Amino acid sequence: MFKDASSHEIDQALNNAWQAFHQYRKCSLKERAQFMRSIAVELENAGDELIQTAMRETNLPEARLRNERARTMFQLTSYADACERGEWLEARIDTANASKTPPKPDLRKMLIPLGPVVVFGASNFPFAYSTAGGDTACAFAAGCPVIVKAHPAHAQTSELVAQAILKAAGKCNLPNGVFAHVHGVSQEVGKALVTHPHTKAVGFTGSYLGGKALFDWANQRKEPIPVFAEMGSVNPVFLFPEKLKQSAVDVAKMYAGSITLGVGQFCTNPGLIFGIEGDELQQFITTLGNEIKAISPGTMLHPGISKNYAENRARALSQQQVQTVAISDAQAAANQGIPTIASASGEAFLNNPILHQEVFGPYSIVIRCKDKGELLEVVRHLEGQLTATLMATEKDITDNDELVEAVKNICGRFIVNGVPTGVEVCLSMHHGGPFPATTDSRFTSVGADGIKRFARPIAYQNWPDSLLPEELKNNNPLDIWRTVNDVVTKASL
Amino acid sequence: MFKDASSHEIDQALNNAWQAFHQYRKCSLKERAQFMRSIAVELENAGDELIQTAMRETNLPEARLRNERARTMFQLTSYADACERGEWLEARIDTANASKTPPKPDLRKMLIPLGPVVVFGASNFPFAYSTAGGDTACAFAAGCPVIVKAHPAHAQTSELVAQAILKAAGKCNLPNGVFAHVHGVSQEVGKALVTHPHTKAVGFTGSYLGGKALFDWANQRKEPIPVFAEMGSVNPVFLFPEKLKQSAVDVAKMYAGSITLGVGQFCTNPGLIFGIEGDELQQFITTLGNEIKAISPGTMLHPGISKNYAENRARALSQQQVQTVAISDAQAAANQGIPTIASASGEAFLNNPILHQEVFGPYSIVIRCKDKGELLEVVRHLEGQLTATLMATEKDITDNDELVEAVKNICGRFIVNGVPTGVEVCLSMHHGGPFPATTDSRFTSVGADGIKRFARPIAYQNWPDSLLPEELKNNNPLDIWRTVNDVVTKASL
Repeated sequence: MFKDASSHEIDQALNNAWQAFHQYRKCSLKERAQFMRSIAVELENAGDELIQTAMRETNLPEARLRNERARTMFQLTSYADACERGEWLEARIDTANASKTPPKPDLRKMLIPLGPVVVFGASNFPFAYSTAGGDTACAFAAGCPVIVKAHPAHAQTSELVAQAILKAAGKCNLPNGVFAHVHGVSQEVGKALVTHPHTKAVGFTGSYLGGKALFDWANQRKEPIPVFAEMGSVNPVFLFPEKLKQSAVDVAKMYAGSITLGVGQFCTNPGLIFGIEGDELQQFITTLGNEIKAISPGTMLHPGISKNYAENRARALSQQQVQTVAISDAQAAANQGIPTIASASGEAFLNNPILHQEVFGPYSIVIRCKDKGELLEVVRHLEGQLTATLMATEKDITDNDELVEAVKNICGRFIVNGVPTGVEVCLSMHHGGPFPATTDSRFTSVGADGIKRFARPIAYQNWPDSLLPEELKNNNPLDIWRTVNDVVTKASL
Repeated sequence: MFKDASSHEIDQALNNAWQAFHQYRKCSLKERAQFMRSIAVELENAGDELIQTAMRETNLPEARLRNERARTMFQLTSYADACERGEWLEARIDTANASKTPPKPDLRKMLIPLGPVVVFGASNFPFAYSTAGGDTACAFAAGCPVIVKAHPAHAQTSELVAQAILKAAGKCNLPNGVFAHVHGVSQEVGKALVTHPHTKAVGFTGSYLGGKALFDWANQRKEPIPVFAEMGSVNPVFLFPEKLKQSAVDVAKMYAGSITLGVGQFCTNPGLIFGIEGDELQQFITTLGNEIKAISPGTMLHPGISKNYAENRARALSQQQVQTVAISDAQAAANQGIPTIASASGEAFLNNPILHQEVFGPYSIVIRCKDKGELLEVVRHLEGQLTATLMATEKDITDNDELVEAVKNICGRFIVNGVPTGVEVCLSMHHGGPFPATTDSRFTSVGADGIKRFARPIAYQNWPDSLLPEELKNNNPLDIWRTVNDVVTKASL
């Protein structure tokens, strides 16, 4: 067990980070990218010990953890590539025009780092959304030092990852404070980190209560700072009539897999499925139920999560007008999440906010709306979501424009004929969404655009070319894309 | 006089805006741009009546108001061009790859509008930062309806501009609720607008107290919403030794003009000037004082502003260790702002937070630091600023890297050998800065990048080409720049 960081230790970590910031932000894009690639190498060098420690702490299977480490390394190296390509800098140049009244000065703009970033990792992804995960990678790419608070559920894993990062920092000759790692179970540690004057931004993945607390502390500071908190989602799925007629059974089988993937412990788990009452929906529900019965319970990440799952599931199933459709036939051991499907009417859903809430685990509820009108009404009462999915033919979509637009309005990623689990790491990914899915729908935590969370523009006015940063010099020495007098180009001036 | 909007009227305006949002956001980039250009035409059509009304309400001279209207029209048309060019959409495409494990889906991302935006205009720019100003133009470009709260200091001007916008909306066959205009003197109107559930973002230009109140209300909502509040700045200027040696007199003359431009009523007015004690700084101070004495007081925007100026100026001048360097020789009439220069030591500045505060009007204080060390110390105690200016030779800059980096860290626009007044409208402009200059240093209120304040990304996963928005279709029918598989291109897929 690790001791909670004292306020003195936190102060020291932030002071070191602030010192390091002044050096690290001067590192070139190439140097930042080298550091990130070096972290990926050290993660691999951490070898089996890292995997086994994570297995012990999270109950996740070895193959999953190996894949997740590989994904984390891919994040680091692909964001390093994006960092070097430099499109994220949003470099813009407008040249001077002395003949205008008043004369137009030379103006050049690019993004620069905000300062030290505090990262709170997720319990459910000990690598990809934790210590050396997406938030950390984005902050390093932006030019920010990082202070990670280890998730208590995998503190030893986090410690090993932190050592890998520090090794990489040493090999790259980076200043001591570019990375720090602190432990903490109490709220006080989180609050001290977020409210420290040298903290300039926060990244978080976890629960609504956790993320919202950080957001509030950050906004109550004398100098408020941006918080990007990804706080989960119920990821609604909409089953359209023609699609169901064509393939209710296939869709049900696909969703049985998605609902129970990783014992349902994904923020993109499909927790709500909507359809219009009828034989096809009934066939979908029956098939989904039969599939779920055949899927065995799995051990959850830690006892706290499995206890929450048991409680939230029991609460949902005990609501009036909620029917239990299916429960896994297999016996559940301690700390296991039992695959479960419930069902309720659209009316019941509209009248009971409890049914809108996330039940984190292998659980989903099918909502039977009586007609399209009720389905539209339901959508208008949904909160912001990371994802929404249409199981629909093209005709289903074109015939239901108002409904489709209403769904679009509440989600960050909009899927057709797929499942929301699985968050591809690429520039086109948006892992974000309207509140309460995140605290700022304008940013993403997956994909290299996530770098922009931790950077701000600065405009250089009337600077001599020799003193401008490389990114903005006339001859474009870094060969990056820039917008020059409103034209996107790599050309020199 | 106009009556404060009732809570019923505000509710109705937001409900109409919410209805209109579902239509307006479907308008193509071209249709939005046409609307914006049409507003520019109607502003011109509002003719002399508009100018004369503004003259009466703001005391600003005719030439300035004609220029400001032209600037406002330029903003509308240049942001319309940017809207159509579509770079702001950040369109990204990553094509599917079935051979990956797991298979990589087709993902395409672009920005979409947040929803109704409430805009609070500035007292000091009745056109450019008000009813049809930059915030409104950016929101329309993003696809958002706008509700403007008229600034009470120029409510009739605002009313005429609102009519121009409504005329343009009518000519473009846009839905009724795409724009609304409400009046209000009491805080309650602002609060009702910001806390209405259909309000999805806020734009504000004005005082710290005003902007911070909106920010707090927005964050205390059940669903917090983004607020971009530009809250002013003291815009520090740093006089470097070699530069002063070369041209103390010229620099002083240039700054006398900048400090008193528009009776000092710019958020980019240089309110703080720093130098290192010595003969050259003394020469600068003497020349600046002589210039200021010869500049006549001007009538300020409204009696409230002139009263605040008189009080804040008196308070600053009455501080211990503050010397009054020069006051305009001419007699001041009622409501006029008297050009004034004060001076104090670096030590006095470090010990007295009152000297750090903005005195909105034709006032500036010269801080005499005893050496570079004290100057660096002073910079480290400055709050966030819209601009910072170095009056410096290249050698001054290269010799003082630590100081220059510290200044860079606190400003949004970084000027060399110029004046901060004058905010060019172009893509490379950044009109923003670290708190308390604004509530979010990552965004700008001038330049087409300001559109991004009111838009959020959505990722389309696995959509058939025929159902994708034009912006993301394979054949790129809008001919916009997109990033396809990490390559910036206009090519079709």
